[in-house]
Amino acid sequence: MNIRPLHDRVVVRRKEEETTTASGIVLPGSATEKPTQGEVVAVGTGRIQSNGEVAALAVSVGETVVFGQYSGQTIKLDGEELLIMKEEEIYGIIG
Amino acid sequence: MNIRPLHDRVVVRRKEEETTTASGIVLPGSATEKPTQGEVVAVGTGRIQSNGEVAALAVSVGETVVFGQYSGQTIKLDGEELLIMKEEEIYGIIG
Amino acid sequence: MNIRPLHDRVVVRRKEEETTTASGIVLPGSATEKPTQGEVVAVGTGRIQSNGEVAALAVSVGETVVFGQYSGQTIKLDGEELLIMKEEEIYGIIG
Amino acid sequence: MNIRPLHDRVVVRRKEEETTTASGIVLPGSATEKPTQGEVVAVGTGRIQSNGEVAALAVSVGETVVFGQYSGQTIKLDGEELLIMKEEEIYGIIG
Amino acid sequence: MNIRPLHDRVVVRRKEEETTTASGIVLPGSATEKPTQGEVVAVGTGRIQSNGEVAALAVSVGETVVFGQYSGQTIKLDGEELLIMKEEEIYGIIG
Amino acid sequence: MNIRPLHDRVVVRRKEEETTTASGIVLPGSATEKPTQGEVVAVGTGRIQSNGEVAALAVSVGETVVFGQYSGQTIKLDGEELLIMKEEEIYGIIG
Amino acid sequence: MNIRPLHDRVVVRRKEEETTTASGIVLPGSATEKPTQGEVVAVGTGRIQSNGEVAALAVSVGETVVFGQYSGQTIKLDGEELLIMKEEEIYGIIG
Repeated sequence: MNIRPLHDRVVVRRKEEETTTASGIVLPGSATEKPTQGEVVAVGTGRIQSNGEVAALAVSVGETVVFGQYSGQTIKLDGEELLIMKEEEIYGIIG
Repeated sequence: MNIRPLHDRVVVRRKEEETTTASGIVLPGSATEKPTQGEVVAVGTGRIQSNGEVAALAVSVGETVVFGQYSGQTIKLDGEELLIMKEEEIYGIIG
Repeated sequence: MNIRPLHDRVVVRRKEEETTTASGIVLPGSATEKPTQGEVVAVGTGRIQSNGEVAALAVSVGETVVFGQYSGQTIKLDGEELLIMKEEEIYGIIG
Repeated sequence: MNIRPLHDRVVVRRKEEETTTASGIVLPGSATEKPTQGEVVAVGTGRIQSNGEVAALAVSVGETVVFGQYSGQTIKLDGEELLIMKEEEIYGIIG
Repeated sequence: MNIRPLHDRVVVRRKEEETTTASGIVLPGSATEKPTQGEVVAVGTGRIQSNGEVAALAVSVGETVVFGQYSGQTIKLDGEELLIMKEEEIYGIIG
Repeated sequence: MNIRPLHDRVVVRRKEEETTTASGIVLPGSATEKPTQGEVVAVGTGRIQSNGEVAALAVSVGETVVFGQYSGQTIKLDGEELLIMKEEEIYGIIG
Repeated sequence: MNIRPLHDRVVVRRKEEETTTASGIVLPGSATEKPTQGEVVAVGTGRIQSNGEVAALAVSVGETVVFGQYSGQTIKLDGEELLIMKEEEIYGIIG
C-alpha cells in the first residue's frame, strides 16, 4: 500500500537519533524526546506557486531530513506510523 | 440526491481503517478514534488561482484519500453522513 | 421588498431538512439543530478577483445549497428571516 | 458640515426597522436590538485594488443598505450619530 | 521642530469636539471621551503599493479628519501631544 | 565593531527626550518611560518588494527618528545598548 | 555529517558574547541569558519569491550574525547543538 502525497507534502519515516559519546559508545536517542530526523518516503508533485505554476520539491525519496519535534501529522499505513508534513516544515537535508 | 461541491471542495465517505496483526487477524479501527481515510465521492470544479484561472483538483472520484482526524465538515445526504473538505485538507492518495 | 447582495454575497432561505426512515416515515429535521440547506434567493454581481476583474458566482437563484451550521448572518426582510453569506461559505449544490 | 469618507468607506444613517404584522399593524423595531438598515449618506472615492487602480463603490448616496448589527464605527456630525463602515461590511442593497 | 511622517503616516492634532445644543449653547466635548477629530499637521510621502509604486495620500495638511477613539500613537513634539496614524486609520475628511 | 542590518532593518541609538518648561528649564525625560526618539546608526540595503526588487529605505544614518515605546529589539554592541527595528516600525523623521 | 538548509534557512553556531569592562577585564556573557550572536555554518539555496524566482540569501558562511534571543530551532548534529532559522529572523551582520 502506497501513498502519493498531494502538492507540497512529504511523507517521512522517523529515525531514532543516536548519540556517540567521546569514548565511542553509541547512545540511542532519549526515549522521552521524539526524534526529529527521518527518511523521505514519498514526495508530492510540487509546490503550487502564486502564478499557478508548480515547482518541484527540494527533497527526494531516500534523503534524511531534519524537522521540528511537533512537525507533521501522524498517519498509519500498513500498521506503520509515518509522518506527513509540508516541505515548508522541513529544515534541511542531512549528509 | 447528489452534491456538486463548489470550487476546491471534495466530498469524502469515511472508511473504517482496519489493522492486520502479524498473525493475520484483521482488527477494525479503534472505535474511539475516527478513521482518517475515505473514498472521494465528488469533487469541485477546481481551485481558483490568484490570476483568476481555475486549476483542476488533484484527486478524483473513487480514489482513497488520507486526511486529518478533524478535517472537513459533516453533511447529511439521504441520511448518510459524508465529509466535505477543501482539497488543501487532504494529505495524499492511497494505493 | 428585494435585496441585491453585494459582490460575492448570496441570500439563502433555510430549508427544514427531512429524514426518511427505512420504513418510509418522514421525520422533520431536529428542532435543536439548525438546518444547513437552503434555497438561493439572490446572488451578488460576483467575486472581485485580485486583478480587479469580477467573476460570476457559481450558484444561481433557485438552487439548493449546503452550508455550515453557523454560516452567514441572519437578516429580516418583510418579516422573513433570511441568511446572507459569502459564496465562500457555501459547500456545494444539491440535486 | 459634511464628511467625505476616504477610499472604500461609506457613511450610513441608521433606520429604525418596522415590522408589519399580518393585520397591518406597524411595529417599530425592537428597542433592544440595533437596526441594521440604513440610508447611505456619503461614499468614498473607491476601493484601492492591489494593482493600484481605484474601483468605484457599489453603493450610492440615498440607497438603503443592510449591514451587521455591530458593523461600522459611530461618528457624531452636527450632533447626529452616523455610522461609518467599509463597503466590505455592507451585505446588500434593499429595494 | 518638525516631523516628516514616513510613507502612509499622518500627524494629527486632536481637536476638542463641541456640541451645540438646540438653544445654541456650545458644550465642549465630554472630558471622559477623547475627541476623534483633528487637524492634519503633516503627511507622509505616500502609500507604497504592492507593485512598488507610491500613491499620494488622500488627506492634506490643514484638513480636519475623523478617526477612531483609539487610533494612532501619541508622540510628543516640543512638549505638545500629537497623534501619528496610518492613513488607513482615518475615516474621512470633514467640511 | 559594526553592524550591517539586513534588508529593511535599521539600527537606532535611543536619545533621552528633554522637555523644556515655559520658563526655559530643561527637564530630562521621565525615567520611567523609555525615550522613543533616537539617532539612526545604520540602515539595511532596502525593503524587498513583492516583485523581488529592493527599494532603498527612507531613513538615513544620522537622522533623528520617532518610534513606538516598545518598538524594536535591544542588541548589545561593544557594551552599548542599541535598538534594531524594521523601517515599518519608524513613525517619522524629526527636524 | 553536514546539513543543507532548505530555501531561506540558515544554520548558526551560537557564540558566547563577551563583555569588556572599562578596565579591560573580559567578562563572559551572562549565563542566564542566551547569546544572540553566532557564526553562520550553512545557508540555504535562497528565498523563493512570489514570482517563483529564487533570491540568494544576504548572509554567508563564516559571517557573525545577530538574532533574537528566542530565534530559530535547536537541532543536534554530531552531538553539537546548532540553531536553524529563517534569514528573516536574522537582524544583521557584525564586523
